[in-house]
Amino acid sequence: MPEVGRGRVANYIPALARIEPDQFGMAVRTVDGELFGVGAAEAPFSIQSISKVFTLTMALGFDGEALFERVGREPSGNPFNSLVQLEHEAGIPRNPLINAGALVVDDVLLSRTYDAKGAILEFVRDLCGSLDVAYDEEVARSEREWGDRNAALAHFLKSFGNLDNPVADVLDVYVHHCALRMSCAQLTTAFQYLARGGVNQATGERLMSASLTKRANALLLTCGVYDAAGDFAYTVGLPGKSGVGGGIVAVMPNHWCVAVWSPGLNESGNSLAGTRALELFTTKTGISIF
Amino acid sequence: MPEVGRGRVANYIPALARIEPDQFGMAVRTVDGELFGVGAAEAPFSIQSISKVFTLTMALGFDGEALFERVGREPSGNPFNSLVQLEHEAGIPRNPLINAGALVVDDVLLSRTYDAKGAILEFVRDLCGSLDVAYDEEVARSEREWGDRNAALAHFLKSFGNLDNPVADVLDVYVHHCALRMSCAQLTTAFQYLARGGVNQATGERLMSASLTKRANALLLTCGVYDAAGDFAYTVGLPGKSGVGGGIVAVMPNHWCVAVWSPGLNESGNSLAGTRALELFTTKTGISIF
Amino acid sequence: MPEVGRGRVANYIPALARIEPDQFGMAVRTVDGELFGVGAAEAPFSIQSISKVFTLTMALGFDGEALFERVGREPSGNPFNSLVQLEHEAGIPRNPLINAGALVVDDVLLSRTYDAKGAILEFVRDLCGSLDVAYDEEVARSEREWGDRNAALAHFLKSFGNLDNPVADVLDVYVHHCALRMSCAQLTTAFQYLARGGVNQATGERLMSASLTKRANALLLTCGVYDAAGDFAYTVGLPGKSGVGGGIVAVMPNHWCVAVWSPGLNESGNSLAGTRALELFTTKTGISIF
Amino acid sequence: MPEVGRGRVANYIPALARIEPDQFGMAVRTVDGELFGVGAAEAPFSIQSISKVFTLTMALGFDGEALFERVGREPSGNPFNSLVQLEHEAGIPRNPLINAGALVVDDVLLSRTYDAKGAILEFVRDLCGSLDVAYDEEVARSEREWGDRNAALAHFLKSFGNLDNPVADVLDVYVHHCALRMSCAQLTTAFQYLARGGVNQATGERLMSASLTKRANALLLTCGVYDAAGDFAYTVGLPGKSGVGGGIVAVMPNHWCVAVWSPGLNESGNSLAGTRALELFTTKTGISIF
Repeated sequence: MPEVGRGRVANYIPALARIEPDQFGMAVRTVDGELFGVGAAEAPFSIQSISKVFTLTMALGFDGEALFERVGREPSGNPFNSLVQLEHEAGIPRNPLINAGALVVDDVLLSRTYDAKGAILEFVRDLCGSLDVAYDEEVARSEREWGDRNAALAHFLKSFGNLDNPVADVLDVYVHHCALRMSCAQLTTAFQYLARGGVNQATGERLMSASLTKRANALLLTCGVYDAAGDFAYTVGLPGKSGVGGGIVAVMPNHWCVAVWSPGLNESGNSLAGTRALELFTTKTGISIF
Repeated sequence: MPEVGRGRVANYIPALARIEPDQFGMAVRTVDGELFGVGAAEAPFSIQSISKVFTLTMALGFDGEALFERVGREPSGNPFNSLVQLEHEAGIPRNPLINAGALVVDDVLLSRTYDAKGAILEFVRDLCGSLDVAYDEEVARSEREWGDRNAALAHFLKSFGNLDNPVADVLDVYVHHCALRMSCAQLTTAFQYLARGGVNQATGERLMSASLTKRANALLLTCGVYDAAGDFAYTVGLPGKSGVGGGIVAVMPNHWCVAVWSPGLNESGNSLAGTRALELFTTKTGISIF
Repeated sequence: MPEVGRGRVANYIPALARIEPDQFGMAVRTVDGELFGVGAAEAPFSIQSISKVFTLTMALGFDGEALFERVGREPSGNPFNSLVQLEHEAGIPRNPLINAGALVVDDVLLSRTYDAKGAILEFVRDLCGSLDVAYDEEVARSEREWGDRNAALAHFLKSFGNLDNPVADVLDVYVHHCALRMSCAQLTTAFQYLARGGVNQATGERLMSASLTKRANALLLTCGVYDAAGDFAYTVGLPGKSGVGGGIVAVMPNHWCVAVWSPGLNESGNSLAGTRALELFTTKTGISIF
Repeated sequence: MPEVGRGRVANYIPALARIEPDQFGMAVRTVDGELFGVGAAEAPFSIQSISKVFTLTMALGFDGEALFERVGREPSGNPFNSLVQLEHEAGIPRNPLINAGALVVDDVLLSRTYDAKGAILEFVRDLCGSLDVAYDEEVARSEREWGDRNAALAHFLKSFGNLDNPVADVLDVYVHHCALRMSCAQLTTAFQYLARGGVNQATGERLMSASLTKRANALLLTCGVYDAAGDFAYTVGLPGKSGVGGGIVAVMPNHWCVAVWSPGLNESGNSLAGTRALELFTTKTGISIF
């Protein structure tokens, strides 16, 4: 695919800037558990914002839809780290998948758990049915050090009274779950509950009602790929979540989860080759939610 | 349903302001042609912005995806008649379903047809398989007279060079298709091509490829209900298009189309009771695209 | 002066686009009536937005400070023809010297006079003590034809209920006073009332109280040069009003009025050489209001 | 004056919220050194943003007009602590007197002095010719603790590369100079250099050239009173700087400085009674810069 190796690798933190751009991996796992892999499907990478789906699922488990009193569920139409919208809308982030919204979600987890970082790690390991998932402390530290935009967002939220915990604690949780390292194969396992009506594939445990699972997928579709929601829905046609590490996970409910990874990003911060691979995948198979 | 009769009837033009708010109708038509109706399912009403799906379909037929050089396909995150976004984005409307985008679509139809108003009416009648669809000239006139916001949008687009035809002509086409009168039952017939992979139910004629039909549905999901796309996807879970006349049409691909009508609007300009009815419908049946 | 002939001549209407850029004129007239001229000081040019000071003065004469219920008096911080601010601020233009505000002022004149265009012309002729001032009908027509941005502003104001007269009438008055042709020498006579505490130099008639004259000068300082108010106050240090025809008039209360003309514009739409000439003038003389 | 005791005392930090609102003081000092005082003219209060004029003067002394590569000089047209503008304008604050701009100025002082807080205090004491000026450490601490909006601004500036020093250091300097306690009488002495062409009244030392002093006054006029520049220029007609502690200082070049203090604030964050007192003062005397 000519897109592999093109685009710009995320360079706002040194730990991500030195990734080789011409890598590509893809994995599809069916709701029956069958796995198909291509290229670097087993290579771990920094999942970054993909982790926000995990923290959102945990927060919905704690607070249910009351969460939406502190964060909206509309597409932002602005870059993921914009402060503008937050100012116009008095400290209520547009949705839980942009940075500001994810910070509010992390604040919920800090209030609801004894050890938020530990709880998140345990949650993700349970989803994967594997202990082989960990925080990359170097990436977390680098993100903390260079993360002035996120620090600005957090202080801004705090100034509106929409964070209960200290800014430093919220940022610490945030940079850690963004620094989770996982492979495409692992991600397709972890995201199965969104394809299986809320039931964890690894444990058979129900995480969410079928109705709430549909709603979570709707959130991914309208808010999961930064300010490219319309384009992604148009070309790919699946609920998905991307990260600046170059990963994208997408869900075809009742059928499969698919994950791609390629570090070069397009203008919206989504993997260039990854987006294209998903578009080809749904176009060739003729399968999407629409 | 307690929502019926609540909300605010559109009052920006006299011809709409005098509608009785406590009316409700709903119709579901399967891809096999079976029709189920409730309440005022056969009562004609002013479809307003729902008509933009028809004009968009026509323009895609003429220009294909080249249309997206003149109009985007991202959710707007702003009220439907906002000029702000247009200024920041140099005259390229966010998507073809907000007012500014629909004016560009109408400009395409004016350039591509001899008689745009006639062509639109014929297209809709073909979709319905019936001559019983007409422009409400009084509503069109009232909308023209009170439509300073749309006139502002059109002149603004013109100033950016994104209209080829005279502003007055574009506005004339616009107010006419918004003034189409149709019933819920008729709308479920007319929208069938979006549930049937692009094939007109009334004539069996293919209007769009299966792939483009999926893409059109994706546009409806992300851009069809003004600035409530996230909420509507979250609570209803179907691609849909609403109008300030109180109508909403939604599509469950390969299954059915549903139309509701109730004139009271919520803050986003969507039918209050209609949105609630669709939410109940997809929640009770457990059927949505997610 | 090396700036003469540089910058971009206003090209949004054909009638202005064909002006030779390398022209320069300057005139200073003291409150005692003495006149000093340099270069093309007697050459008439299209005064464009400078005319807004005349219409504002007339409207203040009719409505007094009640005018400020329909228009603000804050610098805009945005380009002169922005619709953004107008939307955020619900149809109340920031100040009477940006386009939107000037349209509201023209609406006042239409309501308060039998023949607004005639009344404006008579007012300006009285200020000059000369009949040798006229509308350039070709410029007015060209501006009307190409003025979609102003038409958008006017319809937008109308949609907020902040115009009482028909949009077409308001635009007709607007394009006419913008199309007044005057020379630097004439402008220094016409603006004398702002240097002389409200008293017309030509007739000795009082147009405004001394207090209101000070206030009008304050408006010029904060709002007279589009979104360059800060820079102009910083470098020139005088209340002034510019036009896209390349003219600028500035006032040193109790001392003199100065007018410059050179058609090349800077990024803010102010005469490049004119701004520089005024900066040199106040720096060399050491005389400014600060 | 009926305005005394009205308005809202600044309540964003506890240390300011408990001030009695119904206090009023005013002092005028001529360029010859004569002092006239009314009410609590000798009572010290928290000068807050008025201090930004001192730090700006120091930074201009170090960097000259090169300072304006890092900060603009246009009125903001937005609340003093807005992040919106900063995002649209890529980290260059509109002017040095809004919070974001003052943080950049403080960053300059940190880079140019060994001990910025000590240098500022010494500078202000020199202006007053008195050691009786000090930081209120309790106010500084309270402002640091509750200053999430300013922390957001500082991190935001840092993310754009427009701060060289650590965010914590910049904020520490900022909250200290904002916590200076001075009386109206002291402020009229300290500000004399702006009325005396750049010459310190207490020491006779020249701080700025006459030309730069005029320019500093122009900055105060267009940017000194938050987003009320137009109104203040219109009603008061003097360059001035206000603080949320309720103080305002204004300058009539070559004549006098005037300072007022009354803690109740209007919507723009300027002293309500103070603004009114200054308006009466310039209206009754007929003396303003216009």
